[in-house]
Formats: sequence, structure tokens, C-alpha cells
Amino acid sequence: MFNPIKNLIESRVSTGRYDPARSLSDQQLTELVRLATRAPSAFNAQNWKFVAVRSAEAKARLKAVSFGQQQVEDAAVTFIVCGTLGAHRSMPRALQPSVAAGIVPQSVADAWVAMATEAHQGNPQLQRDEAFRSASLAAMTLMLAAEGMGLSSGAMSGFDTDAVVKAFELDASEVPVMLVTIGYGLANNWPQKPRRPLQDVMVLA
Amino acid sequence: MFNPIKNLIESRVSTGRYDPARSLSDQQLTELVRLATRAPSAFNAQNWKFVAVRSAEAKARLKAVSFGQQQVEDAAVTFIVCGTLGAHRSMPRALQPSVAAGIVPQSVADAWVAMATEAHQGNPQLQRDEAFRSASLAAMTLMLAAEGMGLSSGAMSGFDTDAVVKAFELDASEVPVMLVTIGYGLANNWPQKPRRPLQDVMVLA
Repeated sequence: MFNPIKNLIESRVSTGRYDPARSLSDQQLTELVRLATRAPSAFNAQNWKFVAVRSAEAKARLKAVSFGQQQVEDAAVTFIVCGTLGAHRSMPRALQPSVAAGIVPQSVADAWVAMATEAHQGNPQLQRDEAFRSASLAAMTLMLAAEGMGLSSGAMSGFDTDAVVKAFELDASEVPVMLVTIGYGLANNWPQKPRRPLQDVMVLA
Repeated sequence: MFNPIKNLIESRVSTGRYDPARSLSDQQLTELVRLATRAPSAFNAQNWKFVAVRSAEAKARLKAVSFGQQQVEDAAVTFIVCGTLGAHRSMPRALQPSVAAGIVPQSVADAWVAMATEAHQGNPQLQRDEAFRSASLAAMTLMLAAEGMGLSSGAMSGFDTDAVVKAFELDASEVPVMLVTIGYGLANNWPQKPRRPLQDVMVLA
């Protein structure tokens, strides 16, 4: 049976070299974020934010705080994928569409908010862990969505976090977790690199 | 144009109710992990580990440390997706296949190890962030790979981390980041929950 997602997972490469002449429309950027936000998050908190860096000015600003990496300039867009701290505080709003659609009863939403508040309040490490989890799930979905649209993508963790926060006036609760470049890859990118043997990373219990 | 990954991202639901009578073969479990490890990681460090909990005994052990959640017993498998700390130490081994394949020159691999060592050594928070990033990227790939195989999946962050470490004799460097249940979903699962309006989570720069 042909399995397109298998094919896509196997053929994705971490793209570093992009055609600088090709851009993406705002409609394409919106579609990418729409799909990225279909990723799961704990309690459906959706504790994430996506800054689509696509103007020449904003690209220069981001490049300066990501060790001058050229792909930030050349890719059509680089998303600053942020996870947000204090997810329990924004949950009532995040869950409202699920309640309105009649999927999550209000009493369940209230119980989730209470559980999350009890666990996260006063626990900054757990809040940070949750921000990294949600943002990374969304970032992976974003990359595979891009591949599905015939685009190339690359994840970058090489950036100065504090400088990114300052340069893009992020809120104190917004943690830049990953940069994701998306655009039209050139032919001279590396192939997907081979992985460690499965027996090194897998245990059957 | 038909875009199968778009369809799959939109139709995935966080499955909590599984047919307890249906299991997965070791071959299917191995294929799932093989695809999950195709996720990107910083410097291709592949700082992750997957414990496939699929025997009745191991399921009972995991259920006891994840607040008794029934899906751990009913799903064909629950993966404990771990991120590993101190990724810089295992990088020479992780990069060896890429060097052997002639993709990454030895000098580049050495430079990456040096860069990662300089950044991560003595910085436990960065090591933890990196573990959460890599494991979450792999977990999302795992879930979409499962969907592509006609299976259902669900991410869980509700578990007692220390107790999981103890119950499955994880190494001190192995951090359980997420549980991912995979199996055959029943018809009575909730549909995918609606998301926050895009203007709440997206900025064009």
C-alpha cells in the first residue's frame, strides 16, 4: 500500500540552502500556521505563537540574532516558533471554541483548567517543559505540512534566545523554542543523514 | 491537488479510547520507531530513546505511574518517548553513520561536537530544553507515522516522571518527555477539537 506520509518522512531533509528569489504568499503562510496548530497540546492549551519572519527588514533583524546564518535571509520565511509559559492562564480562552462546538462540556474544560493550574502554578520548570513540548510538536507539524505543500524546511536551534525576544518584542511569557525555515530548497542540500541503529534507541517492554 | 499529509494532519484526533483486543507486531513497532527517528534533531544528535510498552505486565507498570489512565492498558502500545541529557557526549557515536556514508565530513562532525560541548556542558537547562525539543519532534513524527499506517495515536503528558524513570529503570540521562499511545481507536473518540483563531497565535513580520 502506498503510504504518502512514510515517503514524506523519509524524504524530508534539513534544508539550509534556499532559492532567495522565491517567496510565499500571506495565504500560504497562514495555511502553514493553520496546519501547525492542528498539533496536539496538553489539555488542548495551544500554548504557542508563530512569528512569520518574511520581510527583508525582519529577516535582517532575525539573522543578526541567529549567528548570521544565511538561510534566514534566503528562505521565503523563518518562523519563530514560541511556546508560552503559564498555559493554564490562557486555557479558558483556548478551550472556548471546543466548548462552543459542543465537543468539550464546560464542566470538563473547567476541570482541565483547575488541574493545569494546580500543576503549573508556581512550577516554572514544568511551564517551560510544557512550552517546549507544545512548540516542538507544532514545529514538526509545520515542517511536514510544508513538505506536503512541495516546500522545503529546516529546524534551527542556533539563535540567541534573549536577543530574539528583544528584537521581536516578545512577551515575557513567550519563549522562542525553535526557528523553522521554509521555502524552495536548492539542489545542493545534503541528503537526509543516516540514523543510529534502532537497537541503540529502542526497547521493547 | 490532493495533499495526503494535509488531510492526515486535519483528521488526526487525540485518541483516548482503543480496542483492547488488537495488538501490533514487533515489526510494526520497529517500523514506527524507524520513522520517528527520521525527525530532525540539533546537530543530528538523535538524543532520544523509545520504550515500547506493549506486554500486559509492562502496561500495568506504566498505568500505575500515569494516574491509572485506561488508554495505557487498552492501546496496543504506549511509547515512553525520552529525550537524553548530555547529547554532546553521545554525538560522536550518533554522527558516525553520517560520516561513514560520506555525507558529513569528519572535520564537520568534530566541529559540531565541539560546538555542542561548549554550549551544553555545564548548562543543565539547555540540556533539558534540547531533550524536550528532540523528543517532541520525534513524538510528533511517531504520531503522524502511525496515522499513515492507519492507526490512531494520542499524546499524554500526565504521568509521574520520577516514578516512570524508576519503574522502567531509565538512566539518569533519560528524561521521559511524553507518552504516546498507538493502536486501533474506537468510534467513540472525540473529534479533533477546534483551535484558537489564527490571529491570536500568528504574527507576520
